[in-house]
Amino acid sequence: MTQTDQTATTEVPFVPSYVLGSWWTPPAGTAGATVLDASTGDVVASVSTEGLDLAEVVGYARTVGRAGVQPLTFHQRALKLKDLAIHLQAHKTELYEVSNRTGATRRDNLIDIDGGIGVLFTYGSKGRRELPNATVEIDGAVEPLSADGSFVGEHVYTSLPGVAVEINAFNFPVWGMLEKFAPAFLAGLPSIVKPATPTGFVTAACVRLIADSGILPEGSIQLVSGSARDLLDHLDYRDAVAFTGSASTADTLRAHPAVREGGVRFTAEADSLNAAILGPDAVDGTPEFEAFVKSVVTEITAKAGQKCTAIRRVIAPAPLVGVLVRAIADRIEERVALGDPRSEATTMGPLASLDQLADVRHAVEDLVAGGGRIAYGSLDAPAGLAPGGAFMSPVVLTFDDARAEIVHEREAFGPVTSVLGYTSLDDAVELAALGAGSLVATVCSHDPDVARTLLTGIAGHHGRVLLLDRDDAKTSTGHGSPVPHLVHGGPGRAGGGEELGGIRAVHHYMQRTAVQGSPDLLTAVTGVWHRGAARRIAGDPAFGGSPDVVHPFRRALDTLRVGDAFVSGLRRATREEIQAFADTTGDVFYAHVDDAAAEANPFFPGVVAHGYLLVSWAAGLFVAPGRSPVLANSGLENLRFVTPIGVDDEVRVELTAKRITPRETDDYGEVRWDAVLYNQRDEVVANYDVLTLVAADESQALGG
Amino acid sequence: MTQTDQTATTEVPFVPSYVLGSWWTPPAGTAGATVLDASTGDVVASVSTEGLDLAEVVGYARTVGRAGVQPLTFHQRALKLKDLAIHLQAHKTELYEVSNRTGATRRDNLIDIDGGIGVLFTYGSKGRRELPNATVEIDGAVEPLSADGSFVGEHVYTSLPGVAVEINAFNFPVWGMLEKFAPAFLAGLPSIVKPATPTGFVTAACVRLIADSGILPEGSIQLVSGSARDLLDHLDYRDAVAFTGSASTADTLRAHPAVREGGVRFTAEADSLNAAILGPDAVDGTPEFEAFVKSVVTEITAKAGQKCTAIRRVIAPAPLVGVLVRAIADRIEERVALGDPRSEATTMGPLASLDQLADVRHAVEDLVAGGGRIAYGSLDAPAGLAPGGAFMSPVVLTFDDARAEIVHEREAFGPVTSVLGYTSLDDAVELAALGAGSLVATVCSHDPDVARTLLTGIAGHHGRVLLLDRDDAKTSTGHGSPVPHLVHGGPGRAGGGEELGGIRAVHHYMQRTAVQGSPDLLTAVTGVWHRGAARRIAGDPAFGGSPDVVHPFRRALDTLRVGDAFVSGLRRATREEIQAFADTTGDVFYAHVDDAAAEANPFFPGVVAHGYLLVSWAAGLFVAPGRSPVLANSGLENLRFVTPIGVDDEVRVELTAKRITPRETDDYGEVRWDAVLYNQRDEVVANYDVLTLVAADESQALGG
Repeated sequence: MTQTDQTATTEVPFVPSYVLGSWWTPPAGTAGATVLDASTGDVVASVSTEGLDLAEVVGYARTVGRAGVQPLTFHQRALKLKDLAIHLQAHKTELYEVSNRTGATRRDNLIDIDGGIGVLFTYGSKGRRELPNATVEIDGAVEPLSADGSFVGEHVYTSLPGVAVEINAFNFPVWGMLEKFAPAFLAGLPSIVKPATPTGFVTAACVRLIADSGILPEGSIQLVSGSARDLLDHLDYRDAVAFTGSASTADTLRAHPAVREGGVRFTAEADSLNAAILGPDAVDGTPEFEAFVKSVVTEITAKAGQKCTAIRRVIAPAPLVGVLVRAIADRIEERVALGDPRSEATTMGPLASLDQLADVRHAVEDLVAGGGRIAYGSLDAPAGLAPGGAFMSPVVLTFDDARAEIVHEREAFGPVTSVLGYTSLDDAVELAALGAGSLVATVCSHDPDVARTLLTGIAGHHGRVLLLDRDDAKTSTGHGSPVPHLVHGGPGRAGGGEELGGIRAVHHYMQRTAVQGSPDLLTAVTGVWHRGAARRIAGDPAFGGSPDVVHPFRRALDTLRVGDAFVSGLRRATREEIQAFADTTGDVFYAHVDDAAAEANPFFPGVVAHGYLLVSWAAGLFVAPGRSPVLANSGLENLRFVTPIGVDDEVRVELTAKRITPRETDDYGEVRWDAVLYNQRDEVVANYDVLTLVAADESQALGG
Repeated sequence: MTQTDQTATTEVPFVPSYVLGSWWTPPAGTAGATVLDASTGDVVASVSTEGLDLAEVVGYARTVGRAGVQPLTFHQRALKLKDLAIHLQAHKTELYEVSNRTGATRRDNLIDIDGGIGVLFTYGSKGRRELPNATVEIDGAVEPLSADGSFVGEHVYTSLPGVAVEINAFNFPVWGMLEKFAPAFLAGLPSIVKPATPTGFVTAACVRLIADSGILPEGSIQLVSGSARDLLDHLDYRDAVAFTGSASTADTLRAHPAVREGGVRFTAEADSLNAAILGPDAVDGTPEFEAFVKSVVTEITAKAGQKCTAIRRVIAPAPLVGVLVRAIADRIEERVALGDPRSEATTMGPLASLDQLADVRHAVEDLVAGGGRIAYGSLDAPAGLAPGGAFMSPVVLTFDDARAEIVHEREAFGPVTSVLGYTSLDDAVELAALGAGSLVATVCSHDPDVARTLLTGIAGHHGRVLLLDRDDAKTSTGHGSPVPHLVHGGPGRAGGGEELGGIRAVHHYMQRTAVQGSPDLLTAVTGVWHRGAARRIAGDPAFGGSPDVVHPFRRALDTLRVGDAFVSGLRRATREEIQAFADTTGDVFYAHVDDAAAEANPFFPGVVAHGYLLVSWAAGLFVAPGRSPVLANSGLENLRFVTPIGVDDEVRVELTAKRITPRETDDYGEVRWDAVLYNQRDEVVANYDVLTLVAADESQALGG
């Protein structure tokens, strides 16, 4: 669909770039690359960045872009992603029409356009559920670094102090942009999006919807329609580049001085020779065999096989190769209707361009020359379709030698797959690994041992593995579809990068920094109370509390601060109460009711109080009777019982507001409390976090 | 200490390599690089890998090495690291003596040798506390991918299917090796260690202790003493290279085809122009000022300033520069005794070699030419020391222009630092960032706002930040000392890599793979029960239980399997019991006792049972009375209350063995149980994990 012909006349409209807050097209008379309709060969647009000052684009992102995005909290950014998803959802049919011109069918649009919107929804939700309502995220546990607790360490994530550059492939002009943009924006980075020339007009249509919505802060997104030219020259260690495309372009980018020496963070996702392995149990007639055939045909034909995740190597038990090829062929015959995607009957569109068609044909010829045989389909032009369209029939190859080098190295980026026979599970693992690193593999088996053997054998070579069997055949999201919750990427040939994977992808756009210091300063820099830091203590004066300090359960979010605490007095554990708790709850575990057995237990001095009794007492000790803005106890985390409480031991609790998370869309928020139970010798009895929902202001208090 | 002279005569012993399970030295007559004693100039050894077949070394790691390490579980590997730490601890004085010849003082040896042993201890401990006793680690939460729960996804880490190559700098011949080896071994990878020529004889002495101990499986570690030559040519996407050294060597390695195109995972840690910022509050006379001066002098003089983490740029309020320089100078005069480390009085040794000395002098001359002034010390040879020794006095520079390019770009890798004045906190942040990415910075302030402003300003440019104030001055591990618990590395000039950071570093040697499938198959491939997978159910037949199945609390580790479950019958919540629980525990939160207030609460239908009452009842419902190999309830995690239980609602529990972790060194282990509470309408009331300790076999059962 793109041509290197630079003689486009000025009457062909340019695909605009969106930079410095406005739309830009090259001056009239500029020569551009011509983009054609994939099905008809009609001219769609011209593309050029000639005259665009990319240093200025980067500079705008560094200043206006960062100033707009970085001050927002994770929750605020996530809400904007959700709003954007809703906006695009309302306008998606406009994008469908534009996208048809790339050869994309209705099903292809669901993957690209609806899939991209789905990524926004997922990050809009995960950003609020899994990140704090703040700009700094704590990573992992506090590490004690001194015996007395005065020096501790932990890790924080903060936004990279730069910009995100997102270079995309031609096959997913919408999803490709949104799956990179969403995590970058959530991380607080402005994006510069550079789509592939052949389908960038779809990306531009989507960016126009985004810009018109007014939802994002100014400078959050810029679009460079056409060659990236000197874009990377303006980047340094503060910035991140996410690339999807060919392995050779990835290698070229890795050799760029900005990446090789300048410290630009670079992640690549390249198409790979993904395998689908049919387990020896999944013989003809099983639900697995049927699901496998369906999956292979889907992967050959969706986007006309132009997916980096498509199944290129079908690895099946050698005796099953024949029946499998026939079943695949039958299903193609039955289901695949090649044609212009604007026709209702069409289930598979053309390739994206005539260039692409030539490439794929050439690759099939190479596969044949390297030992392959075309077992189904042909390279002849399909009959009855527009001569200017980039149409190609599905092709299935077989190989006498499953180790023929060409089939593990040469990718036909179209509706093409090869079926290889294996002789043992070890052989299947070795064949899959010959792909030298892949985005995804399917393991199709209902036998747990087969699944385990294949998964552990191939996992190190793969970014994703789909375990396909009768139980998930109907509900599976499919071999070829990355989901935003899970990592997309893979080692080796697949580019060595990771995208998506929920919040994991957000971290690609953040710097992880180890911070060491006193609990007070760690509290100051993170906004989260650290054990050992200063507190404002209500409660029992014998343990440092003051009756003049308001009980923290009487404070709503508007006055509650981290470090607000309550300390109780001691409560004695009596034999009778322990027995009564066993009787009323039914928890008659021997350690609570049987002296001899409890004493024989390696951890207990004799009969001990139930752990659940201790946390119940703790609640009784720390709950403030009467009117309170606390709305609910929503949970508890990381409870560890450290020292048992025997008969006549005493227990008290210290409760401290640790993290306060107001919600952007509710008039309450979550408060996480640090709870520590001590005995009468001040030994730690138990540690945990109490989760509560607390009203935003005092007027919502209840009770009393 | 190294010379490029290739004419060493054969009587100088070669530093041996340890490859293919035995010691190797070049054939007699081979020319090698000569290594000299740093203090005396005496010849120590010769170094060469001429004639060593490095393809064979890699091949041995791929076969024998992997076969030895990979089958071990994380816990088994961790125990070997602990045993190795104990062994080296017992022999460390032998290493001290060898290390003295590199110019290392007693304090330097503590950092290098004891520090390295400390890394082994830390990974020996963390590996057992934070990883499962298995070879597959689950990363993060299960992601539901279908509405009916039949298709879910999650991430697993498995060992990279290759080898680890560890290229170290000259300054830490023992720590440098062990801090890379420990996480690689824990991940299941065999290591090929390549120390720097000038001090590789110390590394070789340590590897000899390791090899002689017989603790590690064969092939776990190989040592290449001398040039790495074609080592990288034999690596591919399965392998990982961890490099510490100069930025220019890092750039060269990144340009190697195996890294740039071959998919080798490459991580670099390069020395950087680390800053220490004195807060405006930390004026002369404060504990912070004193701690700051001590820290600067320590960082100038430890390892004679040859640390990648040393303070190269002291950033202080402009008015304080004069007094600060004097205080630094005074402390140097008072504390620093330059000399041969074998002398008791010595507190700072020579640089590692005469070459190194020449380099540092040259760098200081460049700094002066670029606008610096030597405010303390000189480049003259210190008096009274051996003429062949690489001795240099500490040097402190000042700059009239704090933005002089040279001071932010040129590193003097010796006892040299520059003091720069700042005019505002923003200015201080900008100056620190001019280092273009650093390993570490100190922020010295007792003012929470200053600490927060500086930390959030510089975090994105740094791998580690030390918050220094009066509270941690005495207990801090120091600006220059990476700790194994926290990430070591940094963006930009610091190499862009991460090492250490606890288990984070182990993951550098593992592949993260997204796995999608049914709960049954995810259970099969991970060994961890997934909700929705098959269970072996004891308990109430009304809810799928069978009286013929043994209650899982009656099974010891030898017969318990994941998926063993118990389902209870329903228990009704009465008004009286809720009130009694409030009365006996004291938990009189209004939602449990006050009808009107409870009804006004947005989450509750009216008075509801306490969450702690529900988990207590659940324990009563699932605990099996009588004899049991369960030893203790050790904790509870991830409790969430989903649906409240009001008066006359009913509740039941399902408990399923989720993960079983036997301990290598105890006759019990941890069992994690999935607990779900349901109401009479089968709505989920609460979710959590129960943690228990369970005996290894039935004979340890108690009670009944």
